Amino acid sequence: MSQQMEIICVGNELLIGKTLNTNAHWLAKRATSLGIMVKRITVVGDEVNEIANVIRESLQRKPRFIITTGGLGPTFDDKTLEGIAKALNRKLEVNEEALKMVREKYEAYFKEGKMEKVELTPPRVKMATLPEGAESLHNPVGTAPGVTIEIDGTVLIALPGVPPEMEAIFEESVAPLLRKEAGEAMFFETSMYADGIMESALAPLIDQVMHYNPYVYIKSHPRGEERKPYIELHFSTTAKDSKTAKARLGKAIIRLSELVQENGGNVMFQKRKQLS
Amino acid sequence: MSQQMEIICVGNELLIGKTLNTNAHWLAKRATSLGIMVKRITVVGDEVNEIANVIRESLQRKPRFIITTGGLGPTFDDKTLEGIAKALNRKLEVNEEALKMVREKYEAYFKEGKMEKVELTPPRVKMATLPEGAESLHNPVGTAPGVTIEIDGTVLIALPGVPPEMEAIFEESVAPLLRKEAGEAMFFETSMYADGIMESALAPLIDQVMHYNPYVYIKSHPRGEERKPYIELHFSTTAKDSKTAKARLGKAIIRLSELVQENGGNVMFQKRKQLS
Repeated sequence: MSQQMEIICVGNELLIGKTLNTNAHWLAKRATSLGIMVKRITVVGDEVNEIANVIRESLQRKPRFIITTGGLGPTFDDKTLEGIAKALNRKLEVNEEALKMVREKYEAYFKEGKMEKVELTPPRVKMATLPEGAESLHNPVGTAPGVTIEIDGTVLIALPGVPPEMEAIFEESVAPLLRKEAGEAMFFETSMYADGIMESALAPLIDQVMHYNPYVYIKSHPRGEERKPYIELHFSTTAKDSKTAKARLGKAIIRLSELVQENGGNVMFQKRKQLS
Repeated sequence: MSQQMEIICVGNELLIGKTLNTNAHWLAKRATSLGIMVKRITVVGDEVNEIANVIRESLQRKPRFIITTGGLGPTFDDKTLEGIAKALNRKLEVNEEALKMVREKYEAYFKEGKMEKVELTPPRVKMATLPEGAESLHNPVGTAPGVTIEIDGTVLIALPGVPPEMEAIFEESVAPLLRKEAGEAMFFETSMYADGIMESALAPLIDQVMHYNPYVYIKSHPRGEERKPYIELHFSTTAKDSKTAKARLGKAIIRLSELVQENGGNVMFQKRKQLS
């Protein structure tokens, strides 16, 4: 049984459709590849109560990990830490370790000539003001530290919304933790492509193959233009080693290929670029 | 007060990071532009209980609209309608109007020579099997109809996950409804760009401008490379006409520009392409 994760993305820009949520996509892909099962992704705006509600609801479902992105910066609408504190009914307090990280960043900016003097203004101290009991995570490329806090068996990790900062903290501090907790389970996937057969005709064939290959999950995705449609068949499995995974996926692929061809369809193992 | 909407996206491919959630982005942008306020976006996998839970939780928050995407097709893992029926404690039944839509599609495919005979197999009838009391929405480009059902003041709309189908049903059947309900409120937005000033120095300036321009929302987004950073300042407002919106946004932009320059920064009104 894989460890479960929920992802919470904070930011009005996601709710007004200004920003495409590449952070959720990146995190889901990375966590899945490390053997973690992402169960839910939630996007909310920059409102303390909304953030607190989503955190509380997520904690009730008891995932092993919650990762939030966004809302850690210096501006008034960076409200994630306030939301977490409210959800946990804890105070916000200046965290000395986080403040040291923030101070070192501004000292570096000063040395690089980006600032006239090092001054820890209230917006800067805000980035080091964490819920009681939280710890800070080093940010290799930006100013706001990541934050982590454990609550009744759930590890809550707050990352910034700026993608290079989110990714850098994840790789440095979060990935090693997930890798350790995921144990030996790894996620494997591959796709094949079919045309000359409708999705509604494929459905019972997929059922049949999944019935005899219970560890393989197969999902069909209609692709291509309306006049030249084809169907992507995505095969995935979670296994302890690639040999087991390849054997499982291979068996399911061969059987589904046979069935597709028996039903008048064609099978391809690469996207037919000429179709689009 | 704008009408509120929640978006629910169903699909394991979103949770494993295989597919970037462009549907949520597209829907959020279109709904916002029609004057609707998107409050939450949730992504769940292809599991009946998960879908039912998310629908139930969303209904408890009483948004005017819930739009789901994905899970309406013919395959075993298209489970959105089953999830909705479970959430509402209603039976699934073959809907005659929906069945007529599905039959007409297959008759058209037959005439185009894509099928050897018109046959309403169980996977095809499944696309017309809706929760009691639901109505179908015409799908101009694909097979699975959209579905709509009203529950205690919330209009729940289920759209397919294939983007051209989702968009076509939205434009034909959903946009006119949203436009009517949104009344006269419209969303207006614009951005300016600043460099030579840190986000933590901008924070109190933004606070000040928002304090004196209460209908304008300003959010800063760090952009650019680490060595050549700049900050996008995104201004938005909801207003009944563009004249009001332009006056509000213009006033806030002028004041923030002055403050940025007084604090040693530069202001640009286009993205500085040469920076990246």
